[in-house]
Amino acid sequence: MSEHTYRVTEIVGSSHEGIDDAIRNGLARASRTLRQLDWFQVTEIRGNLDEGTIAHYQVGLKVGFRLEDDGPGGDAGG
Amino acid sequence: MSEHTYRVTEIVGSSHEGIDDAIRNGLARASRTLRQLDWFQVTEIRGNLDEGTIAHYQVGLKVGFRLEDDGPGGDAGG
Amino acid sequence: MSEHTYRVTEIVGSSHEGIDDAIRNGLARASRTLRQLDWFQVTEIRGNLDEGTIAHYQVGLKVGFRLEDDGPGGDAGG
Amino acid sequence: MSEHTYRVTEIVGSSHEGIDDAIRNGLARASRTLRQLDWFQVTEIRGNLDEGTIAHYQVGLKVGFRLEDDGPGGDAGG
Amino acid sequence: MSEHTYRVTEIVGSSHEGIDDAIRNGLARASRTLRQLDWFQVTEIRGNLDEGTIAHYQVGLKVGFRLEDDGPGGDAGG
Amino acid sequence: MSEHTYRVTEIVGSSHEGIDDAIRNGLARASRTLRQLDWFQVTEIRGNLDEGTIAHYQVGLKVGFRLEDDGPGGDAGG
Amino acid sequence: MSEHTYRVTEIVGSSHEGIDDAIRNGLARASRTLRQLDWFQVTEIRGNLDEGTIAHYQVGLKVGFRLEDDGPGGDAGG
Amino acid sequence: MSEHTYRVTEIVGSSHEGIDDAIRNGLARASRTLRQLDWFQVTEIRGNLDEGTIAHYQVGLKVGFRLEDDGPGGDAGG
Amino acid sequence: MSEHTYRVTEIVGSSHEGIDDAIRNGLARASRTLRQLDWFQVTEIRGNLDEGTIAHYQVGLKVGFRLEDDGPGGDAGG
Amino acid sequence: MSEHTYRVTEIVGSSHEGIDDAIRNGLARASRTLRQLDWFQVTEIRGNLDEGTIAHYQVGLKVGFRLEDDGPGGDAGG
Amino acid sequence: MSEHTYRVTEIVGSSHEGIDDAIRNGLARASRTLRQLDWFQVTEIRGNLDEGTIAHYQVGLKVGFRLEDDGPGGDAGG
Amino acid sequence: MSEHTYRVTEIVGSSHEGIDDAIRNGLARASRTLRQLDWFQVTEIRGNLDEGTIAHYQVGLKVGFRLEDDGPGGDAGG
Repeated sequence: MSEHTYRVTEIVGSSHEGIDDAIRNGLARASRTLRQLDWFQVTEIRGNLDEGTIAHYQVGLKVGFRLEDDGPGGDAGG
Repeated sequence: MSEHTYRVTEIVGSSHEGIDDAIRNGLARASRTLRQLDWFQVTEIRGNLDEGTIAHYQVGLKVGFRLEDDGPGGDAGG
Repeated sequence: MSEHTYRVTEIVGSSHEGIDDAIRNGLARASRTLRQLDWFQVTEIRGNLDEGTIAHYQVGLKVGFRLEDDGPGGDAGG
Repeated sequence: MSEHTYRVTEIVGSSHEGIDDAIRNGLARASRTLRQLDWFQVTEIRGNLDEGTIAHYQVGLKVGFRLEDDGPGGDAGG
Repeated sequence: MSEHTYRVTEIVGSSHEGIDDAIRNGLARASRTLRQLDWFQVTEIRGNLDEGTIAHYQVGLKVGFRLEDDGPGGDAGG
Repeated sequence: MSEHTYRVTEIVGSSHEGIDDAIRNGLARASRTLRQLDWFQVTEIRGNLDEGTIAHYQVGLKVGFRLEDDGPGGDAGG
Repeated sequence: MSEHTYRVTEIVGSSHEGIDDAIRNGLARASRTLRQLDWFQVTEIRGNLDEGTIAHYQVGLKVGFRLEDDGPGGDAGG
Repeated sequence: MSEHTYRVTEIVGSSHEGIDDAIRNGLARASRTLRQLDWFQVTEIRGNLDEGTIAHYQVGLKVGFRLEDDGPGGDAGG
Repeated sequence: MSEHTYRVTEIVGSSHEGIDDAIRNGLARASRTLRQLDWFQVTEIRGNLDEGTIAHYQVGLKVGFRLEDDGPGGDAGG
Repeated sequence: MSEHTYRVTEIVGSSHEGIDDAIRNGLARASRTLRQLDWFQVTEIRGNLDEGTIAHYQVGLKVGFRLEDDGPGGDAGG
Repeated sequence: MSEHTYRVTEIVGSSHEGIDDAIRNGLARASRTLRQLDWFQVTEIRGNLDEGTIAHYQVGLKVGFRLEDDGPGGDAGG
Repeated sequence: MSEHTYRVTEIVGSSHEGIDDAIRNGLARASRTLRQLDWFQVTEIRGNLDEGTIAHYQVGLKVGFRLEDDGPGGDAGG
C-alpha cells in the first residue's frame, strides 16, 4: 500500500540566467507531462559560451516521481 | 537480427521488510507495464527512519529490457 | 524560447562487428521512435563470449534529445 | 522555520546474520544517542571470514538527522 | 605548532530560495556550535517538489574546522 | 614476520534466493580452493529476469586472502 | 575540415557573491587570453570561511576551446 | 546446480591497429588458458606514442568465466 | 555481543615532512579524545606551496573506532 | 637525470568515421605543437547527431609528454 | 609479435614503517612467484591502529605483468 | 581585486626513492616555469618495475597557481 515504486527520469534544463533558473526551467517543463514529481538531484553543471560570455547554463537533473499503484500506466519504462 | 537494442530505465523500489523485498517490489511494479525485462542492477540502497526504526528500505535499480526489432514502439525514449 | 529542455534516455546497442557498429545500431533503433536526437555519450563497453570468441559487443549509451517546447507530449518522463 | 539543517554521521553496523540485520543493528545503536534520525544510505558492504565462512557482515552507513533549530547543541560538528 | 589537524563534518543545508542560500543556511547553523570553520565543499545538490514546484533545495556540504592544538576537546570524533 | 601480503581475487556469486545467499554461495565455492580467506567486499549487485521475475541474483565480490610467507606458491598472480 | 580538435583547460573562479558569479569571473579571466571558448563544465564547488561566514566561493571549471586548424600554435599542450 | 560462481580476471590487450583489435588480441590470449569465458568489460583505453604517432592501443579488460561446480580447481583465486 | 557498531570520523592531518608524518600527526591528535581507534583510510593527499616549495602536506583520513556497547555515549553522532 | 617530469594535457579529438579515427585526429593535431608525446588515455566518448545519424564522434583524451630537463620552457603550466 | 597481453593481479602489501615500505613488501612477495612484473598502481591506502598508534600500513596495489606469448601458461586467469 | 582566478595544470613527477620524493621532483620542475604555485593534489600513484624491483615511483599531481589579475598572459589556457 505505502510501498510505492518511483520512476527516475533524466533531463537537462537550460537558462541564460544561472544555475537555479536552469533547474526551475527543466522542472517546469517536466511537470507539464509528469504528475507526482517528488524529488530531483543535480548530476552535472555545464554551459556553452559565445564570444567569451556564457550563452546557456545547462544543468543535468534526475527527477523522481511516484508511479500509480493501480495504473495500467505506460510510464514505468518510459 | 540478433543484434538487439535494449532500453535501460531507472526505478526505486521500496519495502518495510528489507533490501531483497524492495528489489522484488520495484521489479513487480515495472513488469506490469514493461515486457521483456532482461536484467537489473542496484544503484543505491537507502531508507528513511521514523522514531528510530526503519520505515522503508529504498533500493535504486536500473532495469534493462529488449526493444522489439520491428515495433513502431513509443518506448525507446520513454 | 531558446531555453530548451532535453531528455536523456539510456540504451544498450549491440553488434557482432565492433564498438562503432554497436553504437550505430543502438542509435539507429532509437531514432525510429525519437525525434530531435542531439547527442550521445558512451557509459559502458562490454560484450559476451561464445567458445572463446566475441559473440556481441554491447555499448551502453546515454542519448539526449530536445523536448518540444509546446507539446503536450508524453515524453518527458518516458 | 522549515529550512532545517541536517547532520550526516557515518557508522558501520555488523551482524552474523546478513546485510539487513547489520543495518538494523547499526541504526539501533545510533538511535540510543541521536534523536530525529531521518534517513540512511549504504556506503559499503563488506565482511570478514573465519575458517572459510562469514564471521561478520559489515555495512557502512551514512545516517542523517535533523539539528534542533534553536538548540545551543554540541551536535553540529560532532 | 603549525601542523594543525582539522575535523571534517558533513551537513545538509536547505532553502526555499536556491542553492547559494541553502549553503549559507547550513553554514550559519553549523557556526552556532563550531568555532574555527575553515572551508566547505559541496557534495550533493538535491531538492524536493510539491505540486510541481520546488519546495526545498538541499545542499550536502563537508565543512572543515581546525582542532585546538591543546584542547582536551571532545570534538575530534564528534 | 607479521607484515603479510594479501591477494585479492574477484568473483561473482549467484542465487535464486537473495543477496545474502549469493554472497554465501560465492564464498563457499571460493573456499574450496583457497585457504586463509580473510575478508570480502561487495562490488556490484545485479540479477537477471525471466518472465518478469528474478531468475538469479548476482553479487560481485572482492575476496582477500593471506599469502603464505614462505610458500613457493603459484598463487600470487593467480 | 570540420573535424576540429579542442583543448580543455582547468581553472578555478572565485567570488564573494555566489556560485554563478564565481563561474562568470573565472570565464571572464580565461577569455582575456583564450579565443574560441566553446563550453565549460563545473568540476567542484568549494569555499572558505572567515569568522563563520563565507569569504569566497571557489568553483572548479573545465573550459573547452577550439584549436586553430592551421595554426603553428603553442597552445595545444599549454 | 545452476547457481554458478564466476571468476573475474583482469588483463590488458594491445594492438597496433585499434581498440577493437586490442580487445580481440587480449581475449584470444586469455582463451588459450581459460575455458568457459563468458563476458568482458572494458575498464580503460590507453596507448603509447612514438614520434607523434600511436605505437600501441592498450585496452584494460575484466573477463568473467564460469568455475566448474565440481572441480578441485586451482582457479578460484588464480 | 560481538556485533559491534563503529563510528567513522573524518580528519585532515598535516606535516612539513611528508605523507606518512601527516598521517601520524592526524591520528595522534585524534587519539587524544577518542578511544578504541581501530582503522584509518586515506581519502585525499594534498598540500600547499610557498615560494615554490611544499609548506604543508595535508592528508585526509577516515578514522573508525568502536562504540561502547553499553555506553549512554554522546558519541554516535558526534 | 632519468627522474623525468611529465605534463598531462587534455584534448578532444573528433571524426566523422569512428572512435579510433577521432583519437588519431586529436593526437595528430597535438603533435604539431608538442614534442615528446609519450602516452594517451581516453577519458570520454561522446558524439552529436544530425537527423538521426552520427555527425561527429568526440573522444576526450589526456595526453602525456616529457618536459625537457634543462629547458627554460614555458610549457610546464601550459 | 610485440602485441603483448598483460595480466593485472591485485595484492595488499603491509608494513609497520610506512607507505613506501608497504609497497616494497607487497611487490617483493609478488615477485617471488611472478615473472615479468611491469608496473603497479596504488588503489587504496589504509591501516589499523592498536592503542592509538599505527600497527600496520596496508596498501592496495594492482600489479601488471606480461604473459608469455607462447606459453601454455596457467596464468592468464590466475 | 581579491577574487582571483587560478589555473590548474597536471603533471607526473617521478623518483627512484619514493612517493614524497616524486612529488618534490615534480613540483620543483614545475616551479622553474610557473610562478605563484599555490596548492597541489595527488591524483594517482603508480610505478614501473625492472627485474622485480621498483625502477620509478610516478605520482600524478594537479597543481594550482594564481593568474595575474592584470596580465595579458598567455597562460590561462596553457
